[in-house]
Amino acid sequence: MSISVDIPVPLRVHPNGDLTGNTRRYEKFLGDMAGVYRDDAAYRAAVEKHGADTLVYSVEEHRYSDEEGALVIGTSTLLPGTYGTEFAVTRGHIHAVENRAELYYCLAGHGVMLLETIDGQSAAVELTPGEAVNVPGHWIHRSINVGTEPFVTLFTYAADAGQDYAIIGDAAGMKELVVTDGHGGWASVANPEHTGYRVDVNA
Amino acid sequence: MSISVDIPVPLRVHPNGDLTGNTRRYEKFLGDMAGVYRDDAAYRAAVEKHGADTLVYSVEEHRYSDEEGALVIGTSTLLPGTYGTEFAVTRGHIHAVENRAELYYCLAGHGVMLLETIDGQSAAVELTPGEAVNVPGHWIHRSINVGTEPFVTLFTYAADAGQDYAIIGDAAGMKELVVTDGHGGWASVANPEHTGYRVDVNA
Repeated sequence: MSISVDIPVPLRVHPNGDLTGNTRRYEKFLGDMAGVYRDDAAYRAAVEKHGADTLVYSVEEHRYSDEEGALVIGTSTLLPGTYGTEFAVTRGHIHAVENRAELYYCLAGHGVMLLETIDGQSAAVELTPGEAVNVPGHWIHRSINVGTEPFVTLFTYAADAGQDYAIIGDAAGMKELVVTDGHGGWASVANPEHTGYRVDVNA
Repeated sequence: MSISVDIPVPLRVHPNGDLTGNTRRYEKFLGDMAGVYRDDAAYRAAVEKHGADTLVYSVEEHRYSDEEGALVIGTSTLLPGTYGTEFAVTRGHIHAVENRAELYYCLAGHGVMLLETIDGQSAAVELTPGEAVNVPGHWIHRSINVGTEPFVTLFTYAADAGQDYAIIGDAAGMKELVVTDGHGGWASVANPEHTGYRVDVNA
């Protein structure tokens, strides 16, 4: 036999987002989020107050291969906050290989997975510990922390999926915004600046 | 735009193995496990004592598509037990599309994921709550309950992977057996009846 196989790796997933056995960790800081929030004055005030080097989210992942059939397993930890009325978000992405799905399973905190298609469909799935969402292919998706503690998810997706992070910025944000509802909760409202998504992704 | 997309579905994963939002549940009973354990007398005595209709494991899954790129998300609940010195196992499988990986994340209990390649490599990954294993393609794998409570895992794999459940039976069991070590723990020992795996899977 001459099949070359990858070796199974034990991982430990911590509710604080640590992933023992990870192959990569990356962090995003407040200064990386310019242009993400609609209320730019509120964003700039936050940078002024907390500093551009303030951690806003981190991702840990285990990737043993980039080949078809392999899976990436990871954790995403999004710290709480608001910018004007908008809750803290990740950049969001669509998979470069658009039909690739992704699982998100909530380990801690209170969040929303905001999902949109390039032809204007929208969905918001609330996640608390034990809740999950099976994100099909073709959905742009972003994590949003609507709580007061870190929002931590376990995710899995095909290692050959890739990410297009520019699609949201190119459309002046997602179609929907997740904002404070004035009663301690969250609501999804239309983003007046959204231009529609470019349709040339894997067209 | 005319892309047909699947709808994101919220799921709730319970540590007892219930999966709210599932599209399928199946159950395996003691009577389904004939030939699985090496100590056939011990297996037959268990059937005599508990009845062939005794539940031994159940699987719940959410499958929205069988197409490339889609993911199946599910839970596996394997009840504890021993048959002679062997701990309770699932049938085990290799993916019909052999390069397809699978994530197992332990929600409850104490188990082992036993993994073997058709060319004789073997690995045993112990799983307690919070521990996970990223099972690469080309590995035959089986869950084993080495504890006294239900062993519950959350799993994810590509919806087009398929399963070959016959490969283990055709080899008179896996190469390794997971057995009681006589001191309250588990050990992996060679299965003297194992014939080697047939090598014509996706050859």
